[in-house]
Amino acid sequence: MQIITEYIKLSTSPDELYDITGQIAEFIRKNNLKNGQITVFAVGSTCGITTIEYEPGLRRDFPEMLSRIAPRGHYHHDATWGDGNGHSHLRSSLIGTSFVVPVVEGNAVLGTWQQIVFCEFDIRPRQRKVILQFIGETA
Amino acid sequence: MQIITEYIKLSTSPDELYDITGQIAEFIRKNNLKNGQITVFAVGSTCGITTIEYEPGLRRDFPEMLSRIAPRGHYHHDATWGDGNGHSHLRSSLIGTSFVVPVVEGNAVLGTWQQIVFCEFDIRPRQRKVILQFIGETA
Amino acid sequence: MQIITEYIKLSTSPDELYDITGQIAEFIRKNNLKNGQITVFAVGSTCGITTIEYEPGLRRDFPEMLSRIAPRGHYHHDATWGDGNGHSHLRSSLIGTSFVVPVVEGNAVLGTWQQIVFCEFDIRPRQRKVILQFIGETA
Repeated sequence: MQIITEYIKLSTSPDELYDITGQIAEFIRKNNLKNGQITVFAVGSTCGITTIEYEPGLRRDFPEMLSRIAPRGHYHHDATWGDGNGHSHLRSSLIGTSFVVPVVEGNAVLGTWQQIVFCEFDIRPRQRKVILQFIGETA
Repeated sequence: MQIITEYIKLSTSPDELYDITGQIAEFIRKNNLKNGQITVFAVGSTCGITTIEYEPGLRRDFPEMLSRIAPRGHYHHDATWGDGNGHSHLRSSLIGTSFVVPVVEGNAVLGTWQQIVFCEFDIRPRQRKVILQFIGETA
Repeated sequence: MQIITEYIKLSTSPDELYDITGQIAEFIRKNNLKNGQITVFAVGSTCGITTIEYEPGLRRDFPEMLSRIAPRGHYHHDATWGDGNGHSHLRSSLIGTSFVVPVVEGNAVLGTWQQIVFCEFDIRPRQRKVILQFIGETA
């Protein structure tokens, strides 16, 4: 049983999704991961990790849904700190910043249309770090 | 320390919840799982995993809440692909497809009214696969 | 590789968030945890675990957002059971009751403004149990 930890770096834009499924597959391949689980963790309080079918339509639908649930607006957070991203924090707490995917015989067990995405909820470009941590058996 | 992976198969209907707590308890019992964690993973981009008190009222309240948050409608996804399930994808990204439950001394540590459920968000019956992966000690 | 399980007890009030980041850091420190992952699990069907910037503004914004998404009201759950907390259950299913955080070289890999919080969604004070389960290497 082994623990292997790596980082992905992303340069992000507001309201964008980033498909990191390929980088997770590469993490599996180069470390010969066989069976176990990978925790995908978004460092920050205005971002998130989830799964989605990564295609142009849903990349617009997803932030539009969040704009209805947690619209930009005048939040207590903004009143205090003046940074105008109260809604970004709320969206992060709603979607979540941690995601665990099983690896079975060298593959992450995702559906065909199920990609793992990093979600940028903040209102300005950011430099982001996503942690990939595997616990399990290597080949 | 061991890794044990199994699959649950479900034949589902739209907007239904499926209580898989009993199948998880059976997975624990037959493999003599003692301490560790089980990742419960829904394969697909129009479904989810969460916990809920599995009773008839909430089984109706939960999809009704989602109908307000992410109603059926005309999404960019549908405009492109014509499959009419844009809202199903959005609900999946919101609720999440992965869930981790600790096992302590041979039991999943759930509350009395806290069941683990598979959520079907798609608009037609589906054949689904849920992955159960344990990492930990067996008895 | 080791598995270490402990419990946090909380005396909670409705609509409150509880920052448990310090208790997780203490769990790491006193057990000399080095590399691995901690599952943080909220026992119950009317509570949740997520991350947020724990500051007075967002502590009000977060329940206010949930009041818009899943307002107090007349749910099927309440019609059947008469306990008036249908919305509490729905918020729990939405936010989730399980959260996994990687530990790298003795620290939980959180952002500066990213705290792990227990969310009380119920309508009366509760005695709560949060499970912390580590799988990994100790120093």
